[in-house]
Amino acid sequence: MFVLGIDPGLTRTGYGVVEVAGHHTSAVAAGTLRTSPDLPTAQRLVELERDLVDLVAEYGPTEAAIEEVFVNRNLPTAMKVGRASGVIMLVLARSGLTVTEYTPSAIKMALTGYGAADKEQIMQVVAMRLQLPEVPRPADAADALAIALCHAQGAGFRRAVGRAR
Amino acid sequence: MFVLGIDPGLTRTGYGVVEVAGHHTSAVAAGTLRTSPDLPTAQRLVELERDLVDLVAEYGPTEAAIEEVFVNRNLPTAMKVGRASGVIMLVLARSGLTVTEYTPSAIKMALTGYGAADKEQIMQVVAMRLQLPEVPRPADAADALAIALCHAQGAGFRRAVGRAR
Repeated sequence: MFVLGIDPGLTRTGYGVVEVAGHHTSAVAAGTLRTSPDLPTAQRLVELERDLVDLVAEYGPTEAAIEEVFVNRNLPTAMKVGRASGVIMLVLARSGLTVTEYTPSAIKMALTGYGAADKEQIMQVVAMRLQLPEVPRPADAADALAIALCHAQGAGFRRAVGRAR
Repeated sequence: MFVLGIDPGLTRTGYGVVEVAGHHTSAVAAGTLRTSPDLPTAQRLVELERDLVDLVAEYGPTEAAIEEVFVNRNLPTAMKVGRASGVIMLVLARSGLTVTEYTPSAIKMALTGYGAADKEQIMQVVAMRLQLPEVPRPADAADALAIALCHAQGAGFRRAVGRAR
């Protein structure tokens, strides 16, 4: 199972791909898709679509997870994230992927057992689970790996439940 | 000049196409693109993209205008509108159209000279300007015609300013 995790944004969209093979989970790729702040929003969304299509073609994920737009941000920021996440969900669905959404607190809870864990704790857990020599950077990429791990963990649990039945 | 006006939404996106020929402005088409509330958001965005691509191919607009996401709605609704508007802006930009955004109050101001005009007043002005026998329905389609008219009016003004120079 290859899980693509996405931390959506118009200026920066973090992505992380993790592979789950049996009990082993490893990082395949992580990075940031950027769009030019100087361009009109519509053109930036075209850039984002193109880059994400390329990314999906390159890594061929079998599952996709995205962070739900964070509700406490100010509204203009939330709108930008909303537009970017709309384009992201579109591209993933067109690629045949089911897109699962997770709230920030659900991701924290899944990784640390504590819904209000701070960024640094999450990063440490991501590095540990993926046997990375250090905390991944930039933060958007690390967040995206956390989202992918959260989904992979739930998927493992769902399979285990399926077997128990 | 063919102007496509869009009132974005995930469940219902209103569209209206107006043609400006000299001093004459007429309605070419108006209606609503709907997506199934039973489907996951990502699939609904795929439906919206497909329907909008078809619409642009059918009417070949030369300009596009969209209503800015209304800031006073509750956040989950605003997020759905944000995602839909992201996909809409993407499709329009990919079609080579420049997408101009207008706030609800700018649209009201352009059509009635009063930024707090009510819905019914706007509908009456839309019907009058487009020489329609009655107020267009549904409301989303009428809103979209208002957005297209607002843009057409500004475009006429910009041309007149260009000539005066």
